[in-house]
Amino acid sequence: MKFLKTMTLVVITAFSCISCNRQQQGEAGNPTLETILNRKSVRDYSAKEISDEAISNLLKAAMAAPSSRDRRPWELLVVSDKSLLQELGGKLRSASMLQKANKAIIVCGDTTLSDNCWFLDCSAVTQNILLAAESMGIGAVWTAVYPYDDRAAIVSEQFQLPGNIKVLAVIPLGYPVEKNTPKDKFDAARIHNNKW
Amino acid sequence: MKFLKTMTLVVITAFSCISCNRQQQGEAGNPTLETILNRKSVRDYSAKEISDEAISNLLKAAMAAPSSRDRRPWELLVVSDKSLLQELGGKLRSASMLQKANKAIIVCGDTTLSDNCWFLDCSAVTQNILLAAESMGIGAVWTAVYPYDDRAAIVSEQFQLPGNIKVLAVIPLGYPVEKNTPKDKFDAARIHNNKW
Repeated sequence: MKFLKTMTLVVITAFSCISCNRQQQGEAGNPTLETILNRKSVRDYSAKEISDEAISNLLKAAMAAPSSRDRRPWELLVVSDKSLLQELGGKLRSASMLQKANKAIIVCGDTTLSDNCWFLDCSAVTQNILLAAESMGIGAVWTAVYPYDDRAAIVSEQFQLPGNIKVLAVIPLGYPVEKNTPKDKFDAARIHNNKW
Repeated sequence: MKFLKTMTLVVITAFSCISCNRQQQGEAGNPTLETILNRKSVRDYSAKEISDEAISNLLKAAMAAPSSRDRRPWELLVVSDKSLLQELGGKLRSASMLQKANKAIIVCGDTTLSDNCWFLDCSAVTQNILLAAESMGIGAVWTAVYPYDDRAAIVSEQFQLPGNIKVLAVIPLGYPVEKNTPKDKFDAARIHNNKW
């Protein structure tokens, strides 16, 4: 009887483990899909420090993006200096939440590597960073710099960027202060099958 | 003695389950990061059918992308008609692998919703589709249409797209024929800390 009880326990524990593994591989409960659907723009951050390891993971994710003709035109500017975050957040109104951010990544493109596609490649880079951040519980938001000349001038001047380095986005980063809920943006009317 | 043996078994099974859960949440072994780093361009596909459920997951992932001023300018054209895949693959040399694809998703943007950012928003949409596909074991590749006028003309004419609907990318989809290895594109020289 005791043997039966413990064996039942073993079987139940084993089954929950199998279902956990299935979650990682299958379509239902797929953790990557969950991250994609859970990603949201987070604009308020706690004082909790983002580790160097976490930033390193975001940068690895960034450079795993595809690029047109494999030109890899990205350059990544990591801002951890608090006075710099304050200063840039003060000048760049679209990214004023930098003043509360723990760190930031500024996604740039080198036009000498890809003059006509750097902004598309760098959009994929930005999306990779946002998804990696979401998967690590880090709040982030894509604040657009390109295609706005006034914003681009502010960032370029702040960092004295060379003329061939263009800024796509400033991504403030920090652990969220409150629970943020993702928007459900699915709209079946946007899907077309085999014809427009 | 028997009790000890079975309890040891329970503890081992439970621990392997805990480590499995940790994999889903922690930074090391984070499944989303793994998907991002494992994504690769797949250009050869088997005849295996992609299910409607899988396509539905790709479309949900697509529309979870962020967009400038929340304009959501995306439109998604799903191609499952084999003769259509053949025809378009024949005309569009950059996407000739459509002829072997099981299905395709064509990512379009509505310029009346976002004239200056639709191509950036749709790049995030495309990256979401590529990552969702990778996480489901489906091969995919971003074949650029924008910013090439000749390619855009071919797709627009094929589907008689309205003038305000622009095509960013054609994504052929299919289960991979062979194991594809991702490129390691990490380059520490592209990282800048607090200054250029």
